[in-house]
Amino acid sequence: MRPFRLAMAQIDPTVGDLDGNTRKIVEYIDQARALQADLVAFPELAVTGYPPEDLLFKSQFIRANIARMKEIAAESRGIAVVVGFVDANPELRNAAAVAYDGQVVGVYHKMYLPNYGVFDEERYFKAGAVCPVYQIGATAVGVNICEDIWKPIGPTTVQRAQGGQVILNISGSPFYADRLGEREEMLAARATDNGVFVGYVNIVGGQDELVFDGASMVLGPDGNVVVQGSQFQEELVVADLDVERVSEPPPGSGERDLEDVGAAKRVDVSAPSSGSRPALPRREPIHYGGPGEVYSALVMGTRDYVGKAGFSKVLVALSGGIDSSLVATVAADALGPDNVVAVAMPSRYSSEGSLLDAKALSENLGIELRTIPIEESFAASLDTLAPHFKGTEPGLAEENLQSRLRGVLIMALSNKHDWLVLTTGNKSEMAVGYATIYGDTAGGYAVIKDVPKTLVYRLAEHRNSLSNNPVIPVSVLTKPPSAELRPDQKDEDSLPPYEVLDPILKAYVEDDRSFDEIVSEGFDEETVKRVITLVDRSEYKRRQAPPGIKITPRNFGRDRRMPIANRYRPF
Amino acid sequence: MRPFRLAMAQIDPTVGDLDGNTRKIVEYIDQARALQADLVAFPELAVTGYPPEDLLFKSQFIRANIARMKEIAAESRGIAVVVGFVDANPELRNAAAVAYDGQVVGVYHKMYLPNYGVFDEERYFKAGAVCPVYQIGATAVGVNICEDIWKPIGPTTVQRAQGGQVILNISGSPFYADRLGEREEMLAARATDNGVFVGYVNIVGGQDELVFDGASMVLGPDGNVVVQGSQFQEELVVADLDVERVSEPPPGSGERDLEDVGAAKRVDVSAPSSGSRPALPRREPIHYGGPGEVYSALVMGTRDYVGKAGFSKVLVALSGGIDSSLVATVAADALGPDNVVAVAMPSRYSSEGSLLDAKALSENLGIELRTIPIEESFAASLDTLAPHFKGTEPGLAEENLQSRLRGVLIMALSNKHDWLVLTTGNKSEMAVGYATIYGDTAGGYAVIKDVPKTLVYRLAEHRNSLSNNPVIPVSVLTKPPSAELRPDQKDEDSLPPYEVLDPILKAYVEDDRSFDEIVSEGFDEETVKRVITLVDRSEYKRRQAPPGIKITPRNFGRDRRMPIANRYRPF
Repeated sequence: MRPFRLAMAQIDPTVGDLDGNTRKIVEYIDQARALQADLVAFPELAVTGYPPEDLLFKSQFIRANIARMKEIAAESRGIAVVVGFVDANPELRNAAAVAYDGQVVGVYHKMYLPNYGVFDEERYFKAGAVCPVYQIGATAVGVNICEDIWKPIGPTTVQRAQGGQVILNISGSPFYADRLGEREEMLAARATDNGVFVGYVNIVGGQDELVFDGASMVLGPDGNVVVQGSQFQEELVVADLDVERVSEPPPGSGERDLEDVGAAKRVDVSAPSSGSRPALPRREPIHYGGPGEVYSALVMGTRDYVGKAGFSKVLVALSGGIDSSLVATVAADALGPDNVVAVAMPSRYSSEGSLLDAKALSENLGIELRTIPIEESFAASLDTLAPHFKGTEPGLAEENLQSRLRGVLIMALSNKHDWLVLTTGNKSEMAVGYATIYGDTAGGYAVIKDVPKTLVYRLAEHRNSLSNNPVIPVSVLTKPPSAELRPDQKDEDSLPPYEVLDPILKAYVEDDRSFDEIVSEGFDEETVKRVITLVDRSEYKRRQAPPGIKITPRNFGRDRRMPIANRYRPF
Repeated sequence: MRPFRLAMAQIDPTVGDLDGNTRKIVEYIDQARALQADLVAFPELAVTGYPPEDLLFKSQFIRANIARMKEIAAESRGIAVVVGFVDANPELRNAAAVAYDGQVVGVYHKMYLPNYGVFDEERYFKAGAVCPVYQIGATAVGVNICEDIWKPIGPTTVQRAQGGQVILNISGSPFYADRLGEREEMLAARATDNGVFVGYVNIVGGQDELVFDGASMVLGPDGNVVVQGSQFQEELVVADLDVERVSEPPPGSGERDLEDVGAAKRVDVSAPSSGSRPALPRREPIHYGGPGEVYSALVMGTRDYVGKAGFSKVLVALSGGIDSSLVATVAADALGPDNVVAVAMPSRYSSEGSLLDAKALSENLGIELRTIPIEESFAASLDTLAPHFKGTEPGLAEENLQSRLRGVLIMALSNKHDWLVLTTGNKSEMAVGYATIYGDTAGGYAVIKDVPKTLVYRLAEHRNSLSNNPVIPVSVLTKPPSAELRPDQKDEDSLPPYEVLDPILKAYVEDDRSFDEIVSEGFDEETVKRVITLVDRSEYKRRQAPPGIKITPRNFGRDRRMPIANRYRPF
């Protein structure tokens, strides 16, 4: 028997772009057909883009997505197609349509609806209860969706018990750093536990604060990877599966035990085909590790947000510091140097070195640098405010004033030329509120919002290591961080050193560790108190910050929903 | 037999303020004990405040809340106490503790967890499955929580079938306009369907974007209201219930049919008491209808947010227009005129009338008015930007620049004096993006963010009707709305008249009506297209806007979760 040729299209859909997504899906069907694949699979909610959020409450949108799904099914001449869409029967379902030869032959409804972290699927969908297996020629394929396959006892088990040889999981699994191994381990466990092939197709691309890394994969019954897709690029991942290696399920294996999981169902789809097929190209997937993986996520996230939001050019305010240097570099890598305009906005407190570093970086990147001093606006505003500041010492108000005037000037450029402003604050700053609301936080997209400061340095070093001459000037990496809003200001005047701050922040923000637990890890009690207080008091700033790319297990955004008016103090 | 004296404390807890909430609860227990009430009930999650959101993921917070619940139980000498808290057994539960004579005698777990609108309860809690009835002296009381009682067949039915005479529902039911009737109707249906007394105790007060209106009530088996609490103020609502009026449940009534709903359970709590008791004061509840109800919600929401966020004074930018006039008036009513500072920031395009109106309003309200012209900053910024604006026509960039410089100046005052900035944008503007991000949207709290422009007028008229001389100058209500950012600008140059815009916005934003449906209501097709496009394109602005008070069934905020990068066009 010839092997089962499974094609998986890890595509980058755009939320709401039903026409564009449909066109893209049909193109990949054609590619898969040209390879004489038996089946081509697309990710979770590929028709609508993911996550569609409250667009799902618009019945017009749901109807249009079902119409597109049918158009896609009509394109399934001679090939089975599995594609994610929203079913309405009449409750909304996160669904996979299975089509063959122009007909929808089955629909699977996702059974496990994630409602944690960034996910709100119980808000929208009703869970499915039936676990179908589709007979595609000589091969029995069980289809399920994302979260479903994370369950050791779940639809996969039921589908295996019915003779499923290939379990196909269509997914939309948001990226965070170093997640690939965890995912592969889980899929390998599912493959070996059930003795089946597992095909996993994931989205690539960015959508608001989420990035999807692709890295689709097929694993054999022995748990080994048969084929794997690249991270961070669209790809058709194809493998020939020797499904005869899959043994029969043990007779009556657990169909009774599994009643609670979901009902079994079998659908015959297509006759076995035969004949010779084009050989599959041998391709090495592009995977990344460590800082390179995060860097690539930032590049893809930035490119997609800018494009999907309808912009072509971006503006970055360059302070000469490490954060804005990294953001400008990511932007140039994402959009090309011609689409990045850097703006230096020196004040009376800016050092000569900062301006030189901004110039050197811009030259290295080949991006335009404009210099717009804020002195004139600053002096005028101070003069206007003088009667209202009388008798007070210069302080935070005067510092924030500079930052906000920079925000005003860069937004004026943005409005005038229709360039999107990328903000440059990192996660450590966002956490403790070491940022000026409507000042340096003003802009459309916050590229490194989820990157702790210590990782910002590692990303800069990583990027510098990719070329003989470092793109980011070495002095940017070696000078002490400073906001330069008053003479000789240093971040460490206000904050603990980042090597101390970042692990406390991870413990408190990402891991929900208690005050006592954090202190027991050896951190100074007063420092921990100060950091926690700063984090809690800055929630109002974060709530008004632009979206940015999630690269940790918990970002500031939909992932962490804290009250603003909040009197809880854990010490 | 003497009647059952039920006390319900509609309190205003603060999220996270475990100590403060506990103190408040104990004070109300003492008040209820002084009245010799048999039972005193507190709202849903009264110990933690509501909604605690992701504070619930902090195990230290959960442990502390359980400790406070036990302290409260210890205060239940001679009186039964029902209080909302978070149980952990080990999964988190939205729970009601029942205590008597210092002991916790039972814990109920909420069975229906709302996960729609502003609610995310499936994110946090596991649903309960047991429906206990507590024997308090001679009276059988079934306890359940909020959403539970909205189910015609639910815990109430099971508790009635076990002989429950009083069904006590502890609630945290967010306000929107004209909701009181709906709630009373539902509770009356529950009372008459089951032939029982229904006691419903709700939170009052504001928490971030939510306001709770209180209006707790007791209904008799005939569906009539026995007693009702006021809206928008803390109160101990007490009633003597003639529980002998409750007939026995039909023998074996549905215990079998109800197995699917939840398990029955009966707990004996206290011996019957006797003797004479202080008479209950007869009080008329303060309820509001129409614009008065919304106005009161805005006042309470503003007062609570400002106080709970730790501020005492607020700043309002007065343009002389209706929106800022209304916000300043609400602020003065909420905080007292001494705690409101108005700032007029005229530009070269401001009319003489605007400044006069701002002055008249400030005098009427008795609030301080500062005048800070933006000309100096505006001229300086234009000069700085001149090389970058060369060859372009004045337009949006120059208009937004003025608005953002106002944002800069008012935030400088805020930073200098620690006054919270209230923003003044209405829902119609927020919907279509007729606002300058980091400009007029800059501030901590957006008082009328959920109030459509046409309702802004009604609220102003309502407030003016409360005194002989109108507080808000009549000219403010009669002149055409204008942003005054260029000569002779009017809102209607850019937007449809508000009488047309607001119903289209309601249909699209609140009711999820399709394009065809909206057009079929008689609106001009091009106008509908334009409005929908404006709404969809402004999501990025809303995402960075401050929180504001929800007064409609769907506000911009947790209630409407739309993607920013979104290519869906419904026409």
